[in-house]
Amino acid sequence: MRSGQGKKPDKFTIINELARRRGFFWQSCEIYGGASGFVTYGSLGARLKQNIEDKLRELFVNKLGMLEIESPVITPGKVFEASGHVDHFREPMVECLKCKRRFRADQLLEESAKISSSETEKLGLKGLEKAIEEHGVRCPECGGALGKPKYFLTMFKTTIGPYSKVVGYGRPEAAQGIFVEFRRLYELARERLPFGVLQIGHALRNEISPRQGLVRLREFTIMDVEFFFDPEEPNCFLLKDVEDETLKLVLAENRSKGSEEAVEVTVKEALEKSYIKAEWQAVFMALAKKLLITLGVPPEKQRFIEKLPWERAHYALQCFDQEVYLERLGWTEVSGYAYRTDYDLKRHMQFSGVDMRIYKEYKKPVEMEKAFLKPVMSTLGPVFKAEAAKVADLLSKADPEVVEASVKGSGCYILGKYRILPEHVKIMHRKVEERGKHLIPHVVEPTFGLDRLVHTALEYAYRVKEGRVLLSFPRDIAPVQVGVYPLVSKDGLPEKALQVYRTLLDEGFVAEYDEAGSIGRRYARADEAGTLLGVTVDYETLKNETVTIRDRDSWKQVRTKIEDLPQLLRKYLMYKADFEDLGKLIKS
Amino acid sequence: MRSGQGKKPDKFTIINELARRRGFFWQSCEIYGGASGFVTYGSLGARLKQNIEDKLRELFVNKLGMLEIESPVITPGKVFEASGHVDHFREPMVECLKCKRRFRADQLLEESAKISSSETEKLGLKGLEKAIEEHGVRCPECGGALGKPKYFLTMFKTTIGPYSKVVGYGRPEAAQGIFVEFRRLYELARERLPFGVLQIGHALRNEISPRQGLVRLREFTIMDVEFFFDPEEPNCFLLKDVEDETLKLVLAENRSKGSEEAVEVTVKEALEKSYIKAEWQAVFMALAKKLLITLGVPPEKQRFIEKLPWERAHYALQCFDQEVYLERLGWTEVSGYAYRTDYDLKRHMQFSGVDMRIYKEYKKPVEMEKAFLKPVMSTLGPVFKAEAAKVADLLSKADPEVVEASVKGSGCYILGKYRILPEHVKIMHRKVEERGKHLIPHVVEPTFGLDRLVHTALEYAYRVKEGRVLLSFPRDIAPVQVGVYPLVSKDGLPEKALQVYRTLLDEGFVAEYDEAGSIGRRYARADEAGTLLGVTVDYETLKNETVTIRDRDSWKQVRTKIEDLPQLLRKYLMYKADFEDLGKLIKS
Repeated sequence: MRSGQGKKPDKFTIINELARRRGFFWQSCEIYGGASGFVTYGSLGARLKQNIEDKLRELFVNKLGMLEIESPVITPGKVFEASGHVDHFREPMVECLKCKRRFRADQLLEESAKISSSETEKLGLKGLEKAIEEHGVRCPECGGALGKPKYFLTMFKTTIGPYSKVVGYGRPEAAQGIFVEFRRLYELARERLPFGVLQIGHALRNEISPRQGLVRLREFTIMDVEFFFDPEEPNCFLLKDVEDETLKLVLAENRSKGSEEAVEVTVKEALEKSYIKAEWQAVFMALAKKLLITLGVPPEKQRFIEKLPWERAHYALQCFDQEVYLERLGWTEVSGYAYRTDYDLKRHMQFSGVDMRIYKEYKKPVEMEKAFLKPVMSTLGPVFKAEAAKVADLLSKADPEVVEASVKGSGCYILGKYRILPEHVKIMHRKVEERGKHLIPHVVEPTFGLDRLVHTALEYAYRVKEGRVLLSFPRDIAPVQVGVYPLVSKDGLPEKALQVYRTLLDEGFVAEYDEAGSIGRRYARADEAGTLLGVTVDYETLKNETVTIRDRDSWKQVRTKIEDLPQLLRKYLMYKADFEDLGKLIKS
Repeated sequence: MRSGQGKKPDKFTIINELARRRGFFWQSCEIYGGASGFVTYGSLGARLKQNIEDKLRELFVNKLGMLEIESPVITPGKVFEASGHVDHFREPMVECLKCKRRFRADQLLEESAKISSSETEKLGLKGLEKAIEEHGVRCPECGGALGKPKYFLTMFKTTIGPYSKVVGYGRPEAAQGIFVEFRRLYELARERLPFGVLQIGHALRNEISPRQGLVRLREFTIMDVEFFFDPEEPNCFLLKDVEDETLKLVLAENRSKGSEEAVEVTVKEALEKSYIKAEWQAVFMALAKKLLITLGVPPEKQRFIEKLPWERAHYALQCFDQEVYLERLGWTEVSGYAYRTDYDLKRHMQFSGVDMRIYKEYKKPVEMEKAFLKPVMSTLGPVFKAEAAKVADLLSKADPEVVEASVKGSGCYILGKYRILPEHVKIMHRKVEERGKHLIPHVVEPTFGLDRLVHTALEYAYRVKEGRVLLSFPRDIAPVQVGVYPLVSKDGLPEKALQVYRTLLDEGFVAEYDEAGSIGRRYARADEAGTLLGVTVDYETLKNETVTIRDRDSWKQVRTKIEDLPQLLRKYLMYKADFEDLGKLIKS
C-alpha cells in the first residue's frame, strides 16, 4: 500500500455506513447520544428482516409443519428461576478503579492479552482475576488499574403490576415461552410426537459491552425452534433427504487439543461417527446450511463449531454453532443447535408441580414385574408411636422401586425425618400388564439471530460494479421487488408509469415509484438499495403497451408487455423463470 | 328463560374458551398460576394476528407508501421524560387496607358506583377519594375499607447496562421510536412533506387491573402511524377519494352535555362543520372504517367517539377513538386518531437540543421586514462594568423579535440575571429577502390495538350453523387458507392428497393436511378453526385428476381440476372470483 493513503475501510464499516445512509438500520436515539446496543431498522432494513423471517417461516412452518406461537417479552421471574437463567445467565464484569467504566472481564482479556474465548470461558472469577493480573491488563479507556471481577446478571429486570415485589425479566430467549406452554402445545399437536414449535420475537440481554452494528445487541430478534421428540424413538424421518449433504464441523475434541481445523463429513457420517448426538440436530444443521446458501452465503464461508463443555449453555448436552465468515469479525455465530434433552420440561415440572410428561401407549400391552409396598404397622407402632399412622401414610405414597433399592443398598430409607428399616415395610412383586408409560420428551433447539442474518445478508450481497455499489440480494429477500420509472418526467410518461405501479401494488408486489433525477441516477439509487428489477416506461410504451425490465445485477434489459408483467414477475420471484425469460433481450 | 337453566355464556366467554381450546390464545404461564395481563398466541392466533397486521401494512405501506420501521421496546428514560410520559403516564391506584390488594381507583368507582369513565377521568386524587367515600366503595375482593388513592407510573422500569443508574422503560407506545428518529426518517422521505411512518410491535403498560382476554393487556401489540405534514399546507390529497364516506361521530360537545348520541355525517361535512380538526385525521378515520368492514365489522357496529379534554392524552389537541360494539364489553376502542400537532418533535428538540425543524423553501423569495439588534456599549458599560462585554455578547445572541416585544411591552428584557433597559439596546428594522423558513411539522396519529382487532375479528366471525360453530373470517385473514383431506385413509387417497397438499404449499398457500377421523368430523374441525376452503381427494380424483372444493360458510361444494387449483385459489383469496367460479357445483 502506498504511504500516505488512508486505510481502506473494511466491509463492516462500509455496510454500517451504507445501512445508516440508506436507512437499513442505525443506532437508536442518536439525538440523545445514541443508545448503546439498540438499533432501529428503517424501511429497507425492516423489510429485509421481515423477508428473512418469512424464509425461516417458509422452511419451519410451511414445509416442516411446525406451530408458530407468540408469547410476551416480559416474563414472570419464576419462569427464569426454573429455567436456570437466574443462576446461570450472568457474565463476569470488571470495573476500572480510576474512571469507573465497566467491561466484560473475559472479552477484555481476549482483546488485551490475545487469549481465545474458549480459554477465557473456562476461567471462573478467580481465574479471570489471576489472568488479568498476570497479563497486566488495564482499563482500555484510561489505562487505570482494574478491580476484582464480579458476576453481573445479564437479564433486564423489572416489576410486574402495582405490587412491586413481583419480579419480571425481559426474556433472553424465546424458548421459555414455548416450554412453559408445553402441555397446551402438545394438545394442539394432537398429542403426537415429534412436533416442533417456533417463535420469532424480540429478546433482551443486558450486555455489559454491546458492539457496534447488528452483532451484539441488547435488544435483538431471535427465532427459537423447540423440537420435541420421543427419546426412545429419536430417528428423524427427514434424514434420507439430507444424509448426503456435507457439513464442515469443528469438533470439541479437536478444539480441546488446540486445533480449529474442520472435518468435512456427510450428515450420515457425522451421525455414524457420533460427532452429532441427535439425528434431528444433524438434520436441522443440514437444513440451516442450505438456508444460508439461499441467503447468499456460499458453503465454504460456513462451518459448525462444537461448543466445549464450559462454553455450553447450562441446559445443553451438546451444542453446535453455525458460523459464517465475515470480513472484519471473522467466524461469527448466526445460529445454534443445542440438544437440550429433557432439561427444561423437567425443571418446569419440578418448579410448577405440573406434570410435563406425556403418556406413551405401547403398541401392545407389556407384561412387567412391578414392586408394591405395604407399611408394617406392628413394627412401625413401637418405634414411631403416635406418629406411626402418619409415617405409614407417607410411606405408602413413596415410590416402591426407590424404597426397595434404598433398603437393599444402604439398609434403610430416609423418609423426611424418619428412618425406615427393612422390617418396617413389606415389599412384594407382582406381574402387571402395562398399556403405556409416562416420559418427558427430549428437545433439539435450532435458534437463529435475525439481526446477524441481516448483517450477513448485507455483507454477502455487497458488490462493486464499475465503481458503483449494488446490493445483490437473492430474489426472495430483496426489500423492494420492483422499481417503476418513467424514462423522463413529461409527455404523459409519469402518468403511465404510475398506472403500471398501481397495477403491481394491486397484484401484491412490493414496488416503488421514482421519477426524481436522471434515469441513470434512479437505477444507481435502486441498485444500492438492492431493488431487484426496474420497470421503465418510455415512449414506446405509449405506442405498444410494452415496458423494459432491467436486471439489478447484470444491468441487462428485456422488453415485455405490461399485461404479462404480474405473471412473469411472480415466476421470476419464485425462481421459476430466469431473467432472459421475462421478455425480448435489448441489445445494448 | 326457564328457571333452573344456567345463564347462557356470552360471546366474550365463548370466544375466550374457543380461543383457548383451539389454540388461538390463552393466558401465559398457566402452569405458574397464569401471568395476569399477558397472553400467548398459539398457531391459529399468531397467524390471524399476522394476517391482520399484513392488512394494515397493505393499506398504510403498500397503498399509501408509508415507511415501516422497527425500533426497540426498551427505551432510554430521557426519551419518555421528553415525551411527557414520565409525568403523565400514570393511573390512580387504591389499596385495600385489609387484604392489601390494589385496584385502579377510577375503574373500581365505575364498576362499584356505576359512574361513567368520562366522569371518573375528570377526577383528581382528591376527587376520587371523595367519590369513593361518598359512594361507600369497598374492596371488591374482601369488603375491606380502602386507603387514599395514589398515582402509580404505568410504565415498566428497568436499568440499562452494568451502570445501574441508567433508567430504561418498556415503551407504552411505538410512536416515540418514530419521533426520536425524525431527522433520519425525513431524509429517507427525501426531505418532502407530507410523509408517514409506521411501526408494529410489542408495547408495555404496567396496568394495575388487567382484564381477561385480549382487551386490557400489560404486553400488547400496537401499530402506530405518525403522519407528518406541513401545518401551513394541511390539505389531504386523498380527501376526494373518501369525502362521501359517512362517519358516526359521538362529539365531545354532546358528551359534555351528557349525550352519547352519534351524529352521522360525511367526511366532507365533518370537516366543514369543524367536527374534525385536521383533514388527514378525517381521511384516516374514513379509511379505518372501511378497513374494519373488511375485518367483518358492519358500519352500524362502528363509531368514533371524541375524547373530552380531560380524557385526552397529554400530547393531543383533538382525539377520536374508533369503537366497535362487542357483546359483553359494549363500545370498545380498537383504534385512535390523535392530532398530536408539533408537541412531540418540539419536546424532543427542547430536551435533546437537536433541531427538529424542517427547512421549507418558498416558491419564490419573500421580502420581509426583520428586526436586528445592537447592544449599546456606552450605556451598558456604566451599569454592568466588568460584565458589560459578556452582557453585550449574550444580548447579541438573543432573538431580536423577542427583545423588541419585551422592551416595548414591559419596559425591559430579562436576560438571565441581567435587566436590559431600552437604552441598552438599539433595535433596527431592515427589509430582507427570505428564501424559506424553518418549521416543525404537525402530526396526525392513527394507532391500532392489534390484540383488540384479533378479539373483534373472532367475535364478528363467530357463527352457529345447524348447531355447529364456525369462524367465518374474511378470506384474507383466515389463519388457514385451505385444508386438504383424503376422503378416506386408504386406497392411495392419502398419498394423492399429500401430493396436492405439497403442491399448494409450494405455490405459497397456507395449507393444512388432515386425515384423522371421518370426513365430516374433519370439516367440522376446520370450520371451527375458520379454515376457508376444504379440498378433498376422493375416488374420482384417481380417475380424472379432479378434487372437490368446499366452502366453509355455505358448505357448498364444487369440483375442479387439480392443475387449476393454484390459479383459482389465488383469485378467490384476492376477491377476484366467487366460490361458484371455482368449479362445477355439486348438487347435494
